[in-house]
Amino acid sequence: MRTVSLLVICSMVSLASFSQIEDSLMIRKIADEILINSKAYDNLRHLTKKIGGRLAGSQGMVKAEKWGYQIMQESGADKAWLQECIVPHWVRGGKDEASFKGSTMKKLDVIALGNSMGSGPKGVSGEVIEVRSFDDLEAKKDLVKGKVVFYNYKFNPTFVRTFQAYGDANKYRGQGASMAAKYGAVAAMVRSMSHSADNNPHTGAMRYDSLYPKIPAVAIGLRDADWLSETLAKGKGTIQMKTNGKFLPDTIGHNVIGELKGTEFPDEIITIGGHLDSWDNCEGAHDDGAGCVQTIEVMRALKAVGYKPKRTIRFVLFANEENGLRGGNKYADEAKAKNEKHIFAIESDAGGFTPRSLGFTVSEEQFKKILMWKELIAPYGCSEFTKGGGGADIGPLNRALSTPTGSLNPDSQRYFDVHHARSDVFEAVNKRELELGAVNMAALIYLIDKYGL
Amino acid sequence: MRTVSLLVICSMVSLASFSQIEDSLMIRKIADEILINSKAYDNLRHLTKKIGGRLAGSQGMVKAEKWGYQIMQESGADKAWLQECIVPHWVRGGKDEASFKGSTMKKLDVIALGNSMGSGPKGVSGEVIEVRSFDDLEAKKDLVKGKVVFYNYKFNPTFVRTFQAYGDANKYRGQGASMAAKYGAVAAMVRSMSHSADNNPHTGAMRYDSLYPKIPAVAIGLRDADWLSETLAKGKGTIQMKTNGKFLPDTIGHNVIGELKGTEFPDEIITIGGHLDSWDNCEGAHDDGAGCVQTIEVMRALKAVGYKPKRTIRFVLFANEENGLRGGNKYADEAKAKNEKHIFAIESDAGGFTPRSLGFTVSEEQFKKILMWKELIAPYGCSEFTKGGGGADIGPLNRALSTPTGSLNPDSQRYFDVHHARSDVFEAVNKRELELGAVNMAALIYLIDKYGL
Repeated sequence: MRTVSLLVICSMVSLASFSQIEDSLMIRKIADEILINSKAYDNLRHLTKKIGGRLAGSQGMVKAEKWGYQIMQESGADKAWLQECIVPHWVRGGKDEASFKGSTMKKLDVIALGNSMGSGPKGVSGEVIEVRSFDDLEAKKDLVKGKVVFYNYKFNPTFVRTFQAYGDANKYRGQGASMAAKYGAVAAMVRSMSHSADNNPHTGAMRYDSLYPKIPAVAIGLRDADWLSETLAKGKGTIQMKTNGKFLPDTIGHNVIGELKGTEFPDEIITIGGHLDSWDNCEGAHDDGAGCVQTIEVMRALKAVGYKPKRTIRFVLFANEENGLRGGNKYADEAKAKNEKHIFAIESDAGGFTPRSLGFTVSEEQFKKILMWKELIAPYGCSEFTKGGGGADIGPLNRALSTPTGSLNPDSQRYFDVHHARSDVFEAVNKRELELGAVNMAALIYLIDKYGL
Repeated sequence: MRTVSLLVICSMVSLASFSQIEDSLMIRKIADEILINSKAYDNLRHLTKKIGGRLAGSQGMVKAEKWGYQIMQESGADKAWLQECIVPHWVRGGKDEASFKGSTMKKLDVIALGNSMGSGPKGVSGEVIEVRSFDDLEAKKDLVKGKVVFYNYKFNPTFVRTFQAYGDANKYRGQGASMAAKYGAVAAMVRSMSHSADNNPHTGAMRYDSLYPKIPAVAIGLRDADWLSETLAKGKGTIQMKTNGKFLPDTIGHNVIGELKGTEFPDEIITIGGHLDSWDNCEGAHDDGAGCVQTIEVMRALKAVGYKPKRTIRFVLFANEENGLRGGNKYADEAKAKNEKHIFAIESDAGGFTPRSLGFTVSEEQFKKILMWKELIAPYGCSEFTKGGGGADIGPLNRALSTPTGSLNPDSQRYFDVHHARSDVFEAVNKRELELGAVNMAALIYLIDKYGL
């Protein structure tokens, strides 16, 4: 018995070692394919420079979907298709303007927040009142009527992971206008959600509370925000603001989907994706052109090394993440309606920077299994595996079908320098950093495909 | 007995926990000081934009030393001084030029290698012979006479840590000219040590073997290198090259040193540093302005939070790392002559990028001790502690006095895009990435100061 047990153990151990060596070699092969022959950077150049901004409903969206469909086919998809969804169609409608007039005059670098309503052709003006927080607004609520509320809440530099600073600050962008309108403000101006060293204003989605008037709302660049605050400390002033945003009727957009069909368990689906839409004021290079071209690159590389997945892998460029999430919702709705079996989904939507960690929203048992793969992936950048991971576009899948989700977490230091700002352009992306993101996701997808979850 | 033992254990545990909490709070305090009030970025702007390139012997070197001495004092040094050392004085002497003439003509983007001798005013010309390696040169040695040898050895993209690619390729820059001269070549041209997407040539030190003629040597930009290789595949051609490098007599340079005096063990010295010199063709922002301003920032922050070190901490801006290492040698020589007790030295000379790991050349016992601090530092970026660490400037200290050494290892993906190239400018440095490097070093220095090594 003892001999038999030992033999069994020995063969188990050697099988385990063999498969670990095999996995290590396969991941090296995929990594080399990406680091030597990647198309991700060239694809990103095309998406950003030839197509550019691609907000839901825009011409850019239509062009990007066509490009995505074509590139999925060229990159080796067994099948590619467009999944239709109804998307909102907000337009900026013109140039956003704001100027300060007090003891001195100054044109301010501003941009209307996404989903906000324009001021009308005459613009709106009012005395500026600076508040540091919603508590500060409450304290000053009797002074707000007829004024422009300037939310000067700073992006906290002491959060080492910058997404914490974003989570901490973005309520002023999302809710600030309605909170100010509640007390009679005529417009809202929000300090940009950034700690960049430049003055570019950062847009992003806001939403109105239907109880209050839909007042115009802009983001202001950081240097101008500091200037305004210093100027207001010396005396009063007014802001004249003109914005032109409006909603056109909803229109048709699409998730772009490519698929590699599973050879053993075709009904088990693994999803990897990013979102194809971007704000209109930039090229959407980091947000989220990077996630899109990484997604496509993972497919290209798996095909290029001749890997035949056991399970079905779906590569998805989601529609309308920025101001509606209709793409992510549609994907989940259809998955549920068709009773599809989704075993895992991962999203790259935190910029094309050097990968540092993979985050997972999975069961304890699944997390233990995943942790066993860490040493295989760590050499390529993601040396930390953490609990909690997903993405806006795959969130609906998790909620609808309890699909385990993950996220690629690249280094976050530079993300909010460019996020939703005119500086989010191709030149801000580094070729190797972008490629390494694809390498780390490809390695994970390979392991989940091979061993299940 | 049992009760007593338990009490002892309990008090040890609670002491340990207390001190860990205390350390965690102190490190948080230092980090916040740096992330909120850092002067590192402004200091770097001054060093790069007001002073610029600062090769040993140049006017830039003299200006940088004066600035360094002043900034050490302003940043709170108990004492600051200049440590004199004799430095080499190589000058570029003019504009480096090379052009190709074959079936087509093209001006090539080149830069003379540091320490190389100029071609003379008439330049030098010869048929180009491309080699892929020293082995390839050996195979073609009978064809080399009178020719320009073009080393087209590619920076290997499959090394995830880019310093491995540098280690792999830089022998062609260092020894290529003499290896070619050995077989009668009239000049050498080396593919730049980089995988950047641009065409900037990258200089760096070379050395002649005194057995062979000192032929001119340049680095060529990557796009031009690829073009040249493709063109040569179609037919022969000649290169006309003109460089003007020469050595002037050795001159006087200085290490710039600031010191915080130890309150309990003033004779135990901890050194932290970077090198003040840079190549002349760039602003030396990442190499190694970043290391210098981080070093100064660690001192400023320790003073600002009111920390009184137990041991003496030396903050050193080393002279002449790039083409002589005279500063590092001088520092070690004087330490040895004065019989100083150096317990640890760390260098930041791998760019001002997001910190990822700390490397250590220490004993097993010391490494075990250091590993216990990992959880305190990891939240700020350096989540990996690895064996092997130091720097060119502190290497002599390690060799002379067996001083344990360490290095800050930031993310390496972008370093060789700019290293020794005209693109190594202030704008290539991100404020927060730079600051986080200082945070991680400050945390380590605090722990080593408090607990010894």
